[in-house]
Amino acid sequence: MEKLTLIKVGGKIVEEPDTLQQLLRDFSSIDGYKVLVHGGGRSATKIASQLGIESQMVNGRRITDAEMLKVVTMVYGGLVNKNIVAGLQALQVNALGLTGADMNIMRSYKRPVKDVDYGFVGDVKEVNADVLASLIKQGIVPVLAPLTHDKQGHMLNTNADTIAGEAAKALAKYFDVTLMFCFEKKGVLLNEQDDESVIPEIDRVSFQKYVDEGIIQGGMIPKLENAFQAIDAGVKQVIITQASEIHKNTGTRVH
Amino acid sequence: MEKLTLIKVGGKIVEEPDTLQQLLRDFSSIDGYKVLVHGGGRSATKIASQLGIESQMVNGRRITDAEMLKVVTMVYGGLVNKNIVAGLQALQVNALGLTGADMNIMRSYKRPVKDVDYGFVGDVKEVNADVLASLIKQGIVPVLAPLTHDKQGHMLNTNADTIAGEAAKALAKYFDVTLMFCFEKKGVLLNEQDDESVIPEIDRVSFQKYVDEGIIQGGMIPKLENAFQAIDAGVKQVIITQASEIHKNTGTRVH
Repeated sequence: MEKLTLIKVGGKIVEEPDTLQQLLRDFSSIDGYKVLVHGGGRSATKIASQLGIESQMVNGRRITDAEMLKVVTMVYGGLVNKNIVAGLQALQVNALGLTGADMNIMRSYKRPVKDVDYGFVGDVKEVNADVLASLIKQGIVPVLAPLTHDKQGHMLNTNADTIAGEAAKALAKYFDVTLMFCFEKKGVLLNEQDDESVIPEIDRVSFQKYVDEGIIQGGMIPKLENAFQAIDAGVKQVIITQASEIHKNTGTRVH
Repeated sequence: MEKLTLIKVGGKIVEEPDTLQQLLRDFSSIDGYKVLVHGGGRSATKIASQLGIESQMVNGRRITDAEMLKVVTMVYGGLVNKNIVAGLQALQVNALGLTGADMNIMRSYKRPVKDVDYGFVGDVKEVNADVLASLIKQGIVPVLAPLTHDKQGHMLNTNADTIAGEAAKALAKYFDVTLMFCFEKKGVLLNEQDDESVIPEIDRVSFQKYVDEGIIQGGMIPKLENAFQAIDAGVKQVIITQASEIHKNTGTRVH
């Protein structure tokens, strides 16, 4: 199978003109088939606040009421997505901005209310991978915003890490997928105080060992559990790296 | 050649949930290949005002400074476009929201400053009609936002009537194109006081006669001149009608 690199970058990188330009240059230099998934939470929070809408977060996730859904639809689907697409087109990358509603590529259902009512937040139900794969094979580079739809007329807010993971898993039927998560650090660190102490490779056995020894802890545990889940679903490798390193062979390789 | 219907609807219709739903139902009932082009000026003005940005219009066109460009990119490319796409998907129409930057389908150059500095407004330079036609023939229904790009990394604000006209002209190489402009009235009226006095057909000869007689005047003259320009460029017919009539064989047919 042919190789595909699917890169997820967080909001911070894509929301500041300088870091965005560098990211787009690095992304454009990656060979072969590729997909970019972006966040945009900081801009959403900022614009919501300017509109007098308060951002409420629970467990790091945004509560999305009707007014906040309008904001994220504007900011993720419009402002952030189209600036990335225009920037990539200038670099001769044939980008196409997509939400899950476009060509029904990612359908979700509104998250059921349990302890928390997250509002208009979608959990992914189905990825239309053959449509995505066909675009990619035509030389198009999808730029995915963190928005899905319920196929009943409503947009839904969906976490960008989830979009990246679900797209990678679905595309694994068609490509040899490398899923790359960009992170503030250069990778998973042996020593949190030493930014250069990147663990080059982690498999399930070493993961368990690092967790037992307390080297891997906190938010990195669910991140790596998600990575192993993607591997189980057919993704070739997951790389945890820094946005500025996406075009280099660095970071932590999870396999 | 196969038929294609390209419909341009203004902001008012697509910005109110009830009229939007009716429009989408009517649009979905149109047979054959189709494209929807939308505006969104009212929402842009409203959101700009909530953000403390004043809307300045000259000759009915929006002055688009850097802050206003962000607003229209959000509102046209995100909010309005994605709500239409999600609404059409719910009606089993395989909609794909696009700006001119996506797959480089519509490139423009920033309007040169003469008497007025319109700011980040783009005049269309090139339509990538083969890409659009290929999507359409795959059963995809493009939903075009009134935004283009300069292929140098910048989004530009472009009038929705212009987007519709340029797309129709470019697609005329591939399809037998009907270009439909939705309007507040049921068509071009013989008597402005009588909403039912629709002129069913206008050609160049009768147009000149109506203008000479003062029956057609004001803003309808440039609208019809644009329609004849589209006909000259190969568009089969231009229909001026009301949004609620798009699925009926009514309105004024310009040919």
